[in-house]
Amino acid sequence: MIMNKSYVEVCFSPALYPLYHSKEKITVVTDVFRATTAICTAFENGVDRIIPVASLNEAESYKCEGYLIAAERDGIKPPFADFGNSPYNFMRENIKDKTIVYSTTNGTQAIKKAADAKMVVIAAFINISAVADLLVKLNEDVIVLCAGWKDRFSLEDSVFCGALSEMIIKSGKFSSKCDSVNAAIDLWKEAEKDINDYKTKFAHTHRLKKLMLDDVIEYCLSLDKTSIIPVLDGDTIVKYEK
Amino acid sequence: MIMNKSYVEVCFSPALYPLYHSKEKITVVTDVFRATTAICTAFENGVDRIIPVASLNEAESYKCEGYLIAAERDGIKPPFADFGNSPYNFMRENIKDKTIVYSTTNGTQAIKKAADAKMVVIAAFINISAVADLLVKLNEDVIVLCAGWKDRFSLEDSVFCGALSEMIIKSGKFSSKCDSVNAAIDLWKEAEKDINDYKTKFAHTHRLKKLMLDDVIEYCLSLDKTSIIPVLDGDTIVKYEK
Repeated sequence: MIMNKSYVEVCFSPALYPLYHSKEKITVVTDVFRATTAICTAFENGVDRIIPVASLNEAESYKCEGYLIAAERDGIKPPFADFGNSPYNFMRENIKDKTIVYSTTNGTQAIKKAADAKMVVIAAFINISAVADLLVKLNEDVIVLCAGWKDRFSLEDSVFCGALSEMIIKSGKFSSKCDSVNAAIDLWKEAEKDINDYKTKFAHTHRLKKLMLDDVIEYCLSLDKTSIIPVLDGDTIVKYEK
Repeated sequence: MIMNKSYVEVCFSPALYPLYHSKEKITVVTDVFRATTAICTAFENGVDRIIPVASLNEAESYKCEGYLIAAERDGIKPPFADFGNSPYNFMRENIKDKTIVYSTTNGTQAIKKAADAKMVVIAAFINISAVADLLVKLNEDVIVLCAGWKDRFSLEDSVFCGALSEMIIKSGKFSSKCDSVNAAIDLWKEAEKDINDYKTKFAHTHRLKKLMLDDVIEYCLSLDKTSIIPVLDGDTIVKYEK
């Protein structure tokens, strides 16, 4: 019996996402530095739900309703927010069982764009194997969407796409002839030789360093710190329950 | 004396080009398979000028005025056109001193988008060293634009961007902290180890093979077959005169 393999594609920018989007496909969103890493960390530390919003105005209006607000633009926390975009903000004592409203430069925008995909999965290096296992189990066509940097190509997100694509293709259940998948896998193969050396190629490493926010880089590039998979449920990010 | 280096960026899709475009910068357009390779070949074989047009309708209207028409959509020549998109179409006996009107799926669209850049340079592997030498001589900021495939990422164009970026950065006159430049250079380093092997990763290799148009691939991936540099002059592509 020949089994039809599911198909994986990589989309390097939210601005290109309309070319890929399908209500019949799963979209995996990644923003390695730092939004999706921070979201995974928040769930690992017991947050109940996260409401992604696109604009700071919208985030601020939730503030008046008593929600905790995490927000960032160009790396910097606006004054009204309770937290910025560092995964280290989301410590258990602050967020356990709470709902957080979240708005970032790139990550939450990308999540909103994918909202009506068959399923929206939040992924980062820290939950990569759990996400890969889920995709292989579900065995549906997948788009891996880079949050990028203001719609531009982001190397760390692309390297992540390569790592995830390679994992699910190796399972034998996925195939791809997509140029961006091939490129992402080649970039990941180069990066994984020494990720600590390779990280100096990421423009965002230098942006975070300049803002003295680079303490999180090593953590953001670590594999499998959690097996939690955040997914979008309507307008809200919740923990995927197997 | 510290000399300010010029800056090079790579844009992986015409859909992202508005994020990069500047009237103060040179835009280098590449569509390795096959438009920019074909344009370079046409000038090498003595064409006088090429008028790029975006739509087939526009191309057909020139036909009535007696121009030679080269056109292609999804690899295939429309019936009214004199030539398709193969560089092998542009043989000296057919085109010497002629003007050709040209419309393709991706390449001529990208050229039109860049039209009001400081200078628009048509590049391919077959004229890469000549283009690099010119950019180093002019020493202005550069955007290298991939024609892509229907606004999607194209691996062969991206590999070309890496090769060209590496050449001009090695000259010492250019720098970049652009993620897409770093990615393109890494892809080129991988590809150049054995380009004949690497070409199987290009989705467009398989598209051309299916259409039995893959006879040109080896030629399109050859370095420095010509030192001619086509540039846009108003609405028309002409040979750059040093």
